[in-house]
Amino acid sequence: MFAATILTLYPDMFPGPLGQSLSGRALSEGKWSLETRQIRDHASDRHRSVDDTPAGGGAGMVLRADILAAAIDAATRPDDDRPRLLMSPRGRPLTQARVRELAAGPGALIVCGRFEGVDQRVIEARALEEVSIGDYILSGGEIAAITLLDAVVRLLPGVMGNQESGETESFETGLLEHPHYTRPADFEGRGIPEVLTSGNHRKIADWRLAEAMALTQARRPDLWDAYLAAHPPKPPRPPRRKRQDPPAST
Amino acid sequence: MFAATILTLYPDMFPGPLGQSLSGRALSEGKWSLETRQIRDHASDRHRSVDDTPAGGGAGMVLRADILAAAIDAATRPDDDRPRLLMSPRGRPLTQARVRELAAGPGALIVCGRFEGVDQRVIEARALEEVSIGDYILSGGEIAAITLLDAVVRLLPGVMGNQESGETESFETGLLEHPHYTRPADFEGRGIPEVLTSGNHRKIADWRLAEAMALTQARRPDLWDAYLAAHPPKPPRPPRRKRQDPPAST
Repeated sequence: MFAATILTLYPDMFPGPLGQSLSGRALSEGKWSLETRQIRDHASDRHRSVDDTPAGGGAGMVLRADILAAAIDAATRPDDDRPRLLMSPRGRPLTQARVRELAAGPGALIVCGRFEGVDQRVIEARALEEVSIGDYILSGGEIAAITLLDAVVRLLPGVMGNQESGETESFETGLLEHPHYTRPADFEGRGIPEVLTSGNHRKIADWRLAEAMALTQARRPDLWDAYLAAHPPKPPRPPRRKRQDPPAST
Repeated sequence: MFAATILTLYPDMFPGPLGQSLSGRALSEGKWSLETRQIRDHASDRHRSVDDTPAGGGAGMVLRADILAAAIDAATRPDDDRPRLLMSPRGRPLTQARVRELAAGPGALIVCGRFEGVDQRVIEARALEEVSIGDYILSGGEIAAITLLDAVVRLLPGVMGNQESGETESFETGLLEHPHYTRPADFEGRGIPEVLTSGNHRKIADWRLAEAMALTQARRPDLWDAYLAAHPPKPPRPPRRKRQDPPAST
């Protein structure tokens, strides 16, 4: 079973939205587990401080290596082979491929950064994998951890219904998803594209692929380039000839 | 004041983690407002259904255009000039620049998608701006909305302390942030880089810039290319000469 352990200064933020809907139902059904641990419990002074001023000066405060290392060590089980993630805007961007890997694994130990950052030495000494959920700055790692877990949990066995295979979703095909339509047939004078009501499954699939390709090309040139690299255009087949041409003179 | 209105099928997910720490304090101090609206209140049948099967077939269910449009219209104030966002993996990727724009504006009306997607006609008819927080799939738009709001709220006037100007943070400079260090001076035999304790502010700034550049180049070639394009290397200055060379013969 996927076991998540969260190291945070705000344990009350969990499960938060993960306690409802799809992930909440899966949590109460025991399809994954969520443990939160207060980093501050490993502070050693009487003020329970966990941070200090940055070496070399500058704004903000830095989470201390020794205190975070103690919190990580206390949260690590014997033979714990779960990846140790640090949610950080400096990290590698989270992808659906990494989400799938995590969902297939034993769980994750997730450190939620706060303040200006985390002392670099604990990142190195405890081999933390820095993960970013996007190119923007959050008030801390907690909401990033919730985001990552929501993406992972929906892929765990038995969590999504059979009707949602996820196979045609954005990023699984390398393309953004085609537009969707449903009843009513007329909405404020806007209809549903005719092909979708034609009943011709081949034409519908072709239309959806063309729409997905056009949207990806327009909105995400980065994804489009990667898609083209993975799907090189097939060379045109030579025209079939009725009879053998005479060999070209040499 | 920044006014957020959320259209969702899960209003109980809010404020969730936004009710604590930085954004929670700002919320209770009236530095921003958060209103949630239940999309289902605009369903018209006795089952209160809001979705239907996709035109053309396929997995999942699609949020109906008419019901979502009614919910949006009911949530829109007279002269409402707030952007209308739809959290969706098909959207343009959220950036810190867009976060800054939103924080400088009047607020946002945020639609949280669920199911397979939202009927394309309401996206067009209500001019919804599709926003993606990253290249992975969530169970719905709620956690994406929470992520976006956390990023925006910390930039609102008076929310962050003066010590956190945010100016040297990742993405504000176009580079990932340099490593941080703080006390203790020795952690498990690992020291703090000497330059940081030198007291030489010029050398410290140079070291941090070099570290930020090396990290960005190694981890985010996409950001590095953009940084190089925005910071073309200066041509080397010609060496100063003691006296005028004779003009080159022509």
